[in-house]
Amino acid sequence: MTYCVAVMVDSGIVFASDSRTNAGVDHIAVFRKMRVFERSGDRVVVLLSSGNLSMSQGVVHLLNERAGDPDDPRNIWAQKSMYDVTSQVGDALRDVQDRHEGYLKKHDIDYYASFIVGGQVQGEPPRLFRVYSEGNFIEAGIETPYFQIGETKYGKPILDRLVSHDVDLKTVSKCVLVSFDSTMRSNISVGLPIDIVSYARDSLRIGFQHKIGEDDPYFSALHRQWAEGIRRTFDNLPDPWEDDMN
Amino acid sequence: MTYCVAVMVDSGIVFASDSRTNAGVDHIAVFRKMRVFERSGDRVVVLLSSGNLSMSQGVVHLLNERAGDPDDPRNIWAQKSMYDVTSQVGDALRDVQDRHEGYLKKHDIDYYASFIVGGQVQGEPPRLFRVYSEGNFIEAGIETPYFQIGETKYGKPILDRLVSHDVDLKTVSKCVLVSFDSTMRSNISVGLPIDIVSYARDSLRIGFQHKIGEDDPYFSALHRQWAEGIRRTFDNLPDPWEDDMN
Repeated sequence: MTYCVAVMVDSGIVFASDSRTNAGVDHIAVFRKMRVFERSGDRVVVLLSSGNLSMSQGVVHLLNERAGDPDDPRNIWAQKSMYDVTSQVGDALRDVQDRHEGYLKKHDIDYYASFIVGGQVQGEPPRLFRVYSEGNFIEAGIETPYFQIGETKYGKPILDRLVSHDVDLKTVSKCVLVSFDSTMRSNISVGLPIDIVSYARDSLRIGFQHKIGEDDPYFSALHRQWAEGIRRTFDNLPDPWEDDMN
Repeated sequence: MTYCVAVMVDSGIVFASDSRTNAGVDHIAVFRKMRVFERSGDRVVVLLSSGNLSMSQGVVHLLNERAGDPDDPRNIWAQKSMYDVTSQVGDALRDVQDRHEGYLKKHDIDYYASFIVGGQVQGEPPRLFRVYSEGNFIEAGIETPYFQIGETKYGKPILDRLVSHDVDLKTVSKCVLVSFDSTMRSNISVGLPIDIVSYARDSLRIGFQHKIGEDDPYFSALHRQWAEGIRRTFDNLPDPWEDDMN
């Protein structure tokens, strides 16, 4: 399983992904699910992926290959907007699926893959997209400031509670990490390390980039203090219907 | 959608269910999803249902009909154990499905339904079961003290954090209501009123039974204090990576 989330607010975008993949319980491994394309002063594009790993790696391979060829019109560096960048991701996904679909279907293997694509191309504001397994996509707006892919539900309530367009990137990062903490607590197939990247609006370069492993002191403190705070909040809630309890 | 949960601890069982059903966004209605069979001093059986409403109502109808006939060996009052009671629920579900399956399949209608069945029959301890849509079932144990059906994920983290076999029924009820609060916040198709019932071990009668509607003062206070506590806990978490934030 996978958990990836990207949150766009007025001041920029925070991206995060876990690194655990499983093809059955006896085949759990660590793979990065985040890919950053950065050309300082020109563009920053961050890609998060979920689904069949051979499909998503195939897409990243194609994008890299095309990005290395200045004459290729599909080159990610040559796209005029984040919309066009996202189209290229969707097209690459279709190319990979077209190549493998027949063989995978024959063996009933799920070749689903999906992406979150976000960032900024010089000349337009930061934008955030979600690419479906069929290659089509939608864009985030002010009412829906975040996208999640993979195991999305456990970590959603905290985002719904605390994210709005005017919170700062520090607060968004904290919220994203609490969202990961809740998800990893309830689904053991989502696991560390977490890749987290922040992009500040109009900076046209990656802000901070962290890989959070097992012994990360900040994440450990957050994990502990969050659990203690939830427990304290819960203990302080009024007791229900005192009078007729047995 | 539906959210039902039952939590069994040393001191008894707490059951709760929402009351919203939808067959498309323009057809949202309120139906009770909890059915209590109580014969004081002899047995208490509580049934929670999710899935196709015509199936689950059909099952309750059959169980009621059979419970009214002292000569029917399928009579719920005549069963010697909660295991046998649960078998009768599974059998009734299969009977209802057998009758309607062909017609529903023909129109691609999902005839899935599932149940949580719990309570106590005199002579054995309280027991808790989950009946699958195929009529087979599993029993809760000390390691898995709760079952959920319907929209289960949003409300699971709080149960995982706070429920253990030695908490009292008051605390379990509070936890169950927080679990509902999180679920209703993230899925609008789960809604009030909530039916909540507590059963104290060996009492062989229903403890408290509440229907929580829109203006329930206790649930409103819990909703507000929980949100405030989460926000306070979040605000008190350390900020990440101060030094390299933009």
